[in-house]
Amino acid sequence: MAKILIVYYERTGSTEAMARAIAAGVKDGGGEPVVKRVEDTSIEDLKAADGVVFGSPTYYGLPAPRMLALFEESVRCHGDLAGKVGGAFAASANVGGGNETTVMALIQAMLVHGFVVPGSPAGDHFGPVSVGAPDRRVQSQCGEYGKRIAALAAKLHG
Amino acid sequence: MAKILIVYYERTGSTEAMARAIAAGVKDGGGEPVVKRVEDTSIEDLKAADGVVFGSPTYYGLPAPRMLALFEESVRCHGDLAGKVGGAFAASANVGGGNETTVMALIQAMLVHGFVVPGSPAGDHFGPVSVGAPDRRVQSQCGEYGKRIAALAAKLHG
Amino acid sequence: MAKILIVYYERTGSTEAMARAIAAGVKDGGGEPVVKRVEDTSIEDLKAADGVVFGSPTYYGLPAPRMLALFEESVRCHGDLAGKVGGAFAASANVGGGNETTVMALIQAMLVHGFVVPGSPAGDHFGPVSVGAPDRRVQSQCGEYGKRIAALAAKLHG
Amino acid sequence: MAKILIVYYERTGSTEAMARAIAAGVKDGGGEPVVKRVEDTSIEDLKAADGVVFGSPTYYGLPAPRMLALFEESVRCHGDLAGKVGGAFAASANVGGGNETTVMALIQAMLVHGFVVPGSPAGDHFGPVSVGAPDRRVQSQCGEYGKRIAALAAKLHG
Repeated sequence: MAKILIVYYERTGSTEAMARAIAAGVKDGGGEPVVKRVEDTSIEDLKAADGVVFGSPTYYGLPAPRMLALFEESVRCHGDLAGKVGGAFAASANVGGGNETTVMALIQAMLVHGFVVPGSPAGDHFGPVSVGAPDRRVQSQCGEYGKRIAALAAKLHG
Repeated sequence: MAKILIVYYERTGSTEAMARAIAAGVKDGGGEPVVKRVEDTSIEDLKAADGVVFGSPTYYGLPAPRMLALFEESVRCHGDLAGKVGGAFAASANVGGGNETTVMALIQAMLVHGFVVPGSPAGDHFGPVSVGAPDRRVQSQCGEYGKRIAALAAKLHG
Repeated sequence: MAKILIVYYERTGSTEAMARAIAAGVKDGGGEPVVKRVEDTSIEDLKAADGVVFGSPTYYGLPAPRMLALFEESVRCHGDLAGKVGGAFAASANVGGGNETTVMALIQAMLVHGFVVPGSPAGDHFGPVSVGAPDRRVQSQCGEYGKRIAALAAKLHG
Repeated sequence: MAKILIVYYERTGSTEAMARAIAAGVKDGGGEPVVKRVEDTSIEDLKAADGVVFGSPTYYGLPAPRMLALFEESVRCHGDLAGKVGGAFAASANVGGGNETTVMALIQAMLVHGFVVPGSPAGDHFGPVSVGAPDRRVQSQCGEYGKRIAALAAKLHG
């Protein structure tokens, strides 16, 4: 059973709700989700997972500094995360508010670690995004995304 | 009076409507808008403008190939466009469908030419984006954007 | 044996040389490489591969329009490429000339199709890049990249 | 005389050397440079400048978390920086190591503030980048960039 760590930074509740919806999708997909705030996430947590999904509100079109601090810290295990499945999600206040650029920034950081990142031919192509509080559309996107991440991790590490 | 060329590629009508709303904003801002389909835009048109705004539907998270063909062709006047004001807008079928990445791709191409690109502290930060047909919110964003582009071009080239 | 299609657009010989070095790496990694110019690549070619690596010179910080035209055309098989392994490489005239943004643009396009994209913890993180003609460093990066793509494709589709 | 603030985060000396070369260019261009480490930079410093150039080493393809923390903090003056000239530079250990993506991430953050960002038709198009310690090429790029930033700020705020 693939272990999927979902790490999020929270401000208004949106990313936490998305994290939980992704976790439900991981479970539906036969994986074992672990949901953690970035403040509670250790390098060992990253290493123990078969896949990691990072989520953040949009801060000036980019992930929260606290989320990038985890990447900075993770240089201590550089190389060890290569081949794990990686995913990203983001929440912003507005359309055109930086959701996609935030997700792509997280994907860039994951690619530097050597994560394997899947896209989606339907819905939110780079990773789930929410404008404001997650509505039904976002919840559904998150669920599908969790399933896809779990299935890929099972194939690669099952 | 600053001359602002608005170049768009069209498929479903969304980018054309956005181009016209931006043109109205340019006029409100005291500028002279020129709206052209990319197929009708020449290198001379680019050189004659004080500012150029490029708009495209999202094709696989990027501008339409026909729009990038204009950039490819514009290598003939490379250097001549430096210092002009540049802007971008995009339309996609879905939220998370590549609007922001399309706008940022156009901005990257403009920066290579040496365009001067303004962001927006309110609304669509990188440039106006529409999910589906432009609604009132998008129309308003486009109008404000046109004004901002015209004002900056007047300051730099008036 | 995983079949890896390497599609490139060529102007000065750099991307063709990189394509051949990646193909050699694919072979070393136990895969079956197929190298094609973008003009000779059909939708059927994309569908027949277990993995596809796209390479382009940098045109205004982005892939060549001809390469994006293949993506535009590929909408006819949208969904069919999901789960395939995807990779990208680029050549530019200068450092800071748009190599990384070109590779990331190709990765964005691949994610929209649902490709699975691996990064690299060592060397060129997003995909091989060459400044000018490919030197020994670039050849070696391309070889390693080909191996990584073949290994991932074998795991997923072998 | 346009006042240009150059803010940098430092690890190995590369970005500090680049900051000083940009400052020299600003002076050559008739501007007044102020060079500060990000730790010593206040919101008042940002507000007092006609232009701001941000520089960072590449951390997982993105700016250092400490640099993004300044942007996070700067939400307190959101709107006040609109119309100022913005620029970016980056240093990485390797070619293909995230220099361009780091510069583009800083540009994205500046666009959200409403900065006006110029590109360069020659050399490092998005902003100066150094692979390892800045050599003569990089020093020269930084000098030219400083001049361009100063000239644009003088036009807009002189």
